[in-house]
Amino acid sequence: MPEKTALPRGTRDFSPDEMARRNLIFDVITAVFRQHGYLPIETPAMENLSTLLGKYGEEGDKLIFKILNSGDFLSGVQQDHLSERNSAKLTPLLCEKGLRYDLTVPFARFVVMHQNELSFPFKRYQIQPVWRADKPQKGRYREFYQCDADVIGSRSLLNEAELIGIIDRVFSRLRIGIIIRVNHRKILTGLAETAGLADHFQDMTTALDKIDKTGPENAMKELSDKGIPQPSIDRLRPVLAMNGDNQDKLHALKQVFIQAPAGLQGIREMEEVLEYAVPVMQHADIQLDLTLARGLNYYTGTIIEVVAKDGNIGSLCGGGRYDDLTGIFGLEGMSGVGVAFGAERIYDLMLEMSLFPESIFCGTRVLFVNFGKKEASRCLLLADQLRDSGINAEVYPETAKLGKQFTYADKKGIPYIVLIGENELSTGMISVKDMKSGEQHSTTFEAFLNDLIP
Amino acid sequence: MPEKTALPRGTRDFSPDEMARRNLIFDVITAVFRQHGYLPIETPAMENLSTLLGKYGEEGDKLIFKILNSGDFLSGVQQDHLSERNSAKLTPLLCEKGLRYDLTVPFARFVVMHQNELSFPFKRYQIQPVWRADKPQKGRYREFYQCDADVIGSRSLLNEAELIGIIDRVFSRLRIGIIIRVNHRKILTGLAETAGLADHFQDMTTALDKIDKTGPENAMKELSDKGIPQPSIDRLRPVLAMNGDNQDKLHALKQVFIQAPAGLQGIREMEEVLEYAVPVMQHADIQLDLTLARGLNYYTGTIIEVVAKDGNIGSLCGGGRYDDLTGIFGLEGMSGVGVAFGAERIYDLMLEMSLFPESIFCGTRVLFVNFGKKEASRCLLLADQLRDSGINAEVYPETAKLGKQFTYADKKGIPYIVLIGENELSTGMISVKDMKSGEQHSTTFEAFLNDLIP
Repeated sequence: MPEKTALPRGTRDFSPDEMARRNLIFDVITAVFRQHGYLPIETPAMENLSTLLGKYGEEGDKLIFKILNSGDFLSGVQQDHLSERNSAKLTPLLCEKGLRYDLTVPFARFVVMHQNELSFPFKRYQIQPVWRADKPQKGRYREFYQCDADVIGSRSLLNEAELIGIIDRVFSRLRIGIIIRVNHRKILTGLAETAGLADHFQDMTTALDKIDKTGPENAMKELSDKGIPQPSIDRLRPVLAMNGDNQDKLHALKQVFIQAPAGLQGIREMEEVLEYAVPVMQHADIQLDLTLARGLNYYTGTIIEVVAKDGNIGSLCGGGRYDDLTGIFGLEGMSGVGVAFGAERIYDLMLEMSLFPESIFCGTRVLFVNFGKKEASRCLLLADQLRDSGINAEVYPETAKLGKQFTYADKKGIPYIVLIGENELSTGMISVKDMKSGEQHSTTFEAFLNDLIP
Repeated sequence: MPEKTALPRGTRDFSPDEMARRNLIFDVITAVFRQHGYLPIETPAMENLSTLLGKYGEEGDKLIFKILNSGDFLSGVQQDHLSERNSAKLTPLLCEKGLRYDLTVPFARFVVMHQNELSFPFKRYQIQPVWRADKPQKGRYREFYQCDADVIGSRSLLNEAELIGIIDRVFSRLRIGIIIRVNHRKILTGLAETAGLADHFQDMTTALDKIDKTGPENAMKELSDKGIPQPSIDRLRPVLAMNGDNQDKLHALKQVFIQAPAGLQGIREMEEVLEYAVPVMQHADIQLDLTLARGLNYYTGTIIEVVAKDGNIGSLCGGGRYDDLTGIFGLEGMSGVGVAFGAERIYDLMLEMSLFPESIFCGTRVLFVNFGKKEASRCLLLADQLRDSGINAEVYPETAKLGKQFTYADKKGIPYIVLIGENELSTGMISVKDMKSGEQHSTTFEAFLNDLIP
């Protein structure tokens, strides 16, 4: 009985066509990262659980894939631990390693371990898969790629502007219209203070984050349900309803924050980021969005999120400043700022909007038909000459019927077929069929080669 | 207390320098694969254990990293299974998934699952990490990359020749002198039959495989120790001592195999492979090596192994024909042939032989010094103009001391520094420092840009 072939839930194979489209996205992101002086690193798929656990909240810890210790993994486990049948308590006894959950924590671990080899500010990018034991659903996978760029060891707000410039460039090259939403942790602090919500900061930002999806009324009701006094909620309302461009909003906020120094500090920083970033924008709109919060426990300064102008696919990219990422690994005072591109969502959006070029794959351009051993040997030599000139070429491996060989070229999208039979062998000429026009003509190999070279 | 930062044993981080060198190898291999019409696929890191187990022998099964089931993994496990304390028996109850051990079995699974979407012969390449719970030692890691090219669905020996051509091209472009050793499973069968060792085939090939390392006498002694009669061993000796080039050896073997039809078939196939391959060799030597066996239970035809002409680092690449890879997953009659490049060994060898170019990384070419907000804003615009012309550029993020900014450029190997201070802002000129010569001069931005464009 043959075994059933299947993939683990939430994982995927990528076919050559999918690879070509995915690589287009990765290549653009990589090129823009490099244009800005970011350098690549890679970290292992497996990290010690001591590195991973406690960094993503209780829910995150559960979603980390754990790797069973090799060999006799029960040998050090006491019988009463087994008898207790408590999976959660048994896990650390059975597993020392896990699969990385994101690229940020491994990066922090990397910086701490290699701090003496690195020169700061250190600008790195990293494009690798991560794994999460999430419930698989449309657009959510258990293995997916993250594309991160971070600079660590510099508090300058020029870094924020540069990352916004990177975002602008990436989506401009991918031909996706975007809005870059920005906010600042300290503006949110100011907002909470002036509304008398300093003790309900998390509740407030959680509610604000949802306005986008559920509307302001539902968000306000949520706050009210949580026992937050109506006067506080009423003081939030006009701020969230502010109109105008970024300058107008910041100007109005200054009045609101007269008694809130943190808020004013946030405004000053936001202004500086915009002063740097707005003049270099080629394509994207930057919008100050006071409801933007994103994983706030993490970010300490600027917060960034990217959404598509068209379509409702959610965040395509996000990031912000975090003041103490490496502290947990013993290296204090390392401020960092970074962004992460969501390759899977960008892929889905581009597919939906037909943004991938039709002929994307730099595949085989010439197929040599195989008429037999003697002819094929000649074709092997000529194929190598094409390759030396940068033209991908194949010799059909079997002496199959002509129709089958043509079908192969057709399915693979190969534009030219070269036929070298007994006749061509003796005359030294070749026959070339243009698969698009269907025309076939006799020529010399040299002339054919010259026509192909761009 | 900060947590201790460490990596799991046998795993590695890759720094930007290491990434640049590794990518050079991957880029060459990828380019050559594509030149020959091979297309990329990727498969997930995790596979079901039912896909992986039983494919790599008992020892291999132990070396597969298993992933603990998510959630309450003990819920379906009976108490007596726990009480028994048998790790091996408990593993399949705790784990459904494992990390891939190589790229060949996932490829076979891929072909079977996607057989209706693929057109055959299907030529694919795949460059991804694999994981093995091997004891880590010098040059052996628990996470390492494999670079595989396989063609499936064609029995033509032209495929073997093409793969040999790929090997030749890859190592030629990496400037590594190599010998391509070839052999044929059926020649080994013929050898066993004529020596009366048909019942000791595995013993014979295991011994032959070791001749390279321990010399013929030790190998012969090993056979003798296994109880193989001396006359059989004596019949092997002259064959293994054969001199001359490939043609001489094949000619002599024909006499030996007069009564061994399998052996004669192996010779015919080997001859055809060489007829195709030898004329297209640009760089490498092909040597028929009758002691070459490599994981024989797997290969059914041509066997290929690559060693460096200099250095004694072992196999850099290997492969061969397997007649029934997908049979185990229910798809019969799919013959395939493939090769796998060992990127880690190639890396180590190139480092040892100083084969990496000194300036390998296409990093930042221009650093703009940061003299303050106004100056930096101007630099951001100019940096973007450089990027638009394909020149990677950075603005130093902080208004730091000049010495610090120069040190940053120096450490990152940035060849040009642009200085735009108050003076330059008012005159519209820029100052450029050439880090190699140490010279500094004043110029226009346009002239500087034109000089940089290749």
